[in-house]
Amino acid sequence: MSTSTLVVVLDLFGTFVFALSGAMVGIHKKLDIFGVMVLAFAAGNAGGITRDLLLGTVPPPAISDWRYIGVSLAAGILTFWWYPLVQRLQSAVLVFDAAGLALFAVSGAAKATAFHLNPLAAMMLGVLTGIGGGMLRDVLTSEVPTVLRSDLYAVAALVGAAVVVGGHYLPLLSTTSTLVGAILCFAIRMLAIRRGWQLPKPRHPRDTSEPPAS
Amino acid sequence: MSTSTLVVVLDLFGTFVFALSGAMVGIHKKLDIFGVMVLAFAAGNAGGITRDLLLGTVPPPAISDWRYIGVSLAAGILTFWWYPLVQRLQSAVLVFDAAGLALFAVSGAAKATAFHLNPLAAMMLGVLTGIGGGMLRDVLTSEVPTVLRSDLYAVAALVGAAVVVGGHYLPLLSTTSTLVGAILCFAIRMLAIRRGWQLPKPRHPRDTSEPPAS
Amino acid sequence: MSTSTLVVVLDLFGTFVFALSGAMVGIHKKLDIFGVMVLAFAAGNAGGITRDLLLGTVPPPAISDWRYIGVSLAAGILTFWWYPLVQRLQSAVLVFDAAGLALFAVSGAAKATAFHLNPLAAMMLGVLTGIGGGMLRDVLTSEVPTVLRSDLYAVAALVGAAVVVGGHYLPLLSTTSTLVGAILCFAIRMLAIRRGWQLPKPRHPRDTSEPPAS
Repeated sequence: MSTSTLVVVLDLFGTFVFALSGAMVGIHKKLDIFGVMVLAFAAGNAGGITRDLLLGTVPPPAISDWRYIGVSLAAGILTFWWYPLVQRLQSAVLVFDAAGLALFAVSGAAKATAFHLNPLAAMMLGVLTGIGGGMLRDVLTSEVPTVLRSDLYAVAALVGAAVVVGGHYLPLLSTTSTLVGAILCFAIRMLAIRRGWQLPKPRHPRDTSEPPAS
Repeated sequence: MSTSTLVVVLDLFGTFVFALSGAMVGIHKKLDIFGVMVLAFAAGNAGGITRDLLLGTVPPPAISDWRYIGVSLAAGILTFWWYPLVQRLQSAVLVFDAAGLALFAVSGAAKATAFHLNPLAAMMLGVLTGIGGGMLRDVLTSEVPTVLRSDLYAVAALVGAAVVVGGHYLPLLSTTSTLVGAILCFAIRMLAIRRGWQLPKPRHPRDTSEPPAS
Repeated sequence: MSTSTLVVVLDLFGTFVFALSGAMVGIHKKLDIFGVMVLAFAAGNAGGITRDLLLGTVPPPAISDWRYIGVSLAAGILTFWWYPLVQRLQSAVLVFDAAGLALFAVSGAAKATAFHLNPLAAMMLGVLTGIGGGMLRDVLTSEVPTVLRSDLYAVAALVGAAVVVGGHYLPLLSTTSTLVGAILCFAIRMLAIRRGWQLPKPRHPRDTSEPPAS
């Protein structure tokens, strides 16, 4: 298996597990089968599509390559018909989800770096690739995105993306930094789940008057 | 009237009826006149704009051709000042809405096919063109998009788009398949309204614990 | 300081005050520090990014120029750690916000005009540049965007954008019309705050049955 084939396989794998999470939210929200499919596709692909729109690589592979649509719909159908099974495997799904996050964060950062974005922007696009799908999934179900208020989810993606971007400027082989970034992201995410790590929340929210409209 | 003139007229007609639905939601949500106009424009044009962004045809006609903005604002103003009238014509609006859906689904699929997208992607973009406006309308009013949970709305669009895409690969005249796709989409949608057809909903949602965060 | 340097300084200033408003909403919604940063960036940059996507100028400066990311994160950090201070300066923030709105509306309209969009579209993109950030901020926190239902916010942006676009077609110096547009927008917004000006709301919403699904 060549390197680029491996990358595509891992990318499709990430899309699949993210799509599972989207489909599960759809079922919890009592959507019909079409809604479940839309949430599966959105969760699996919105991060990458947004990155590609911002980089100007259109049509995005998530649209033009049928395999991304295929694995998203497969995840949706699987979850719709065998929901109790997917539900029972939920802790396994969390592990897969962490793997998907790691993969998307490093591949997003690598793609942005290849487009000569500045390091800060490349890191941001890496994080966006990792969390964009879950954010759209939550917006479509009228929820505040969970990534904005809980867990060390985005930070894991940020660390992974930073390693990839840093490796580009240091005399590191890009495969090394990609691998290290992905492993670090995965490890941080798994530890955050196991130990309930949280980011700091704001102090002093005593005054709860409305913020300025705009 | 030439064919391309007819297409533009039908497209503007679809934009107008979708904009009516957006404006009505805005009034139900007690938005001010500006909010009603934004919802009218969003409902009438977001599907086509998203399709155009994904295909890379920017600026999208919905922005660069003043007639799309014009009919959207006209629908918004009409609904704002003569709301009781539009309300009384609501069943007629549903028929127009089905016509708009049929038109957007086939035109979206045809445009995506012309950009050499694969069949699956072309069908998806057809559906997206048809339902994107209503989805943004609902997201902006903090609702779960109705298309995700009720009626045979998206399926009608899918059938229409599939006929157009299929016709492209079979030895059919594209005008024939476009016409057949539009009529089928319209018929399915009208029958779904009349008979209350619904898509299947998930079974077994016994365990309602939170899905995995991402 | 050259003209273009001045424009960038003013643009960064607008981004900063909008990012403050995003961060404050994030704190009110009890997001964690990452969520506060995301809302700061979204509020400060989503309007300009959407305009750039629609015009096809990718990657947008908000992504490719690190200073936009920098001032957004600075506003987020400032608000997160010194929330009581920012809170106490809230009326000053409202003034800054009006200044940001004026700046974004005229710069958005000027950029769209430079891309040869029609006058109506250029005005719309000016308004979108001014209000897009606040809209995404509200959508991400599962609220109906405040701009859709209160205050003369968008109208101020519209007047500013219209002056810029009009100046392009009349024998006016563009610097003159940009300045006049910005001042008018700022003045209208400040007067609307002081005097509680509102746009008309719909009459006759007696029948509150559900609008047509789409």
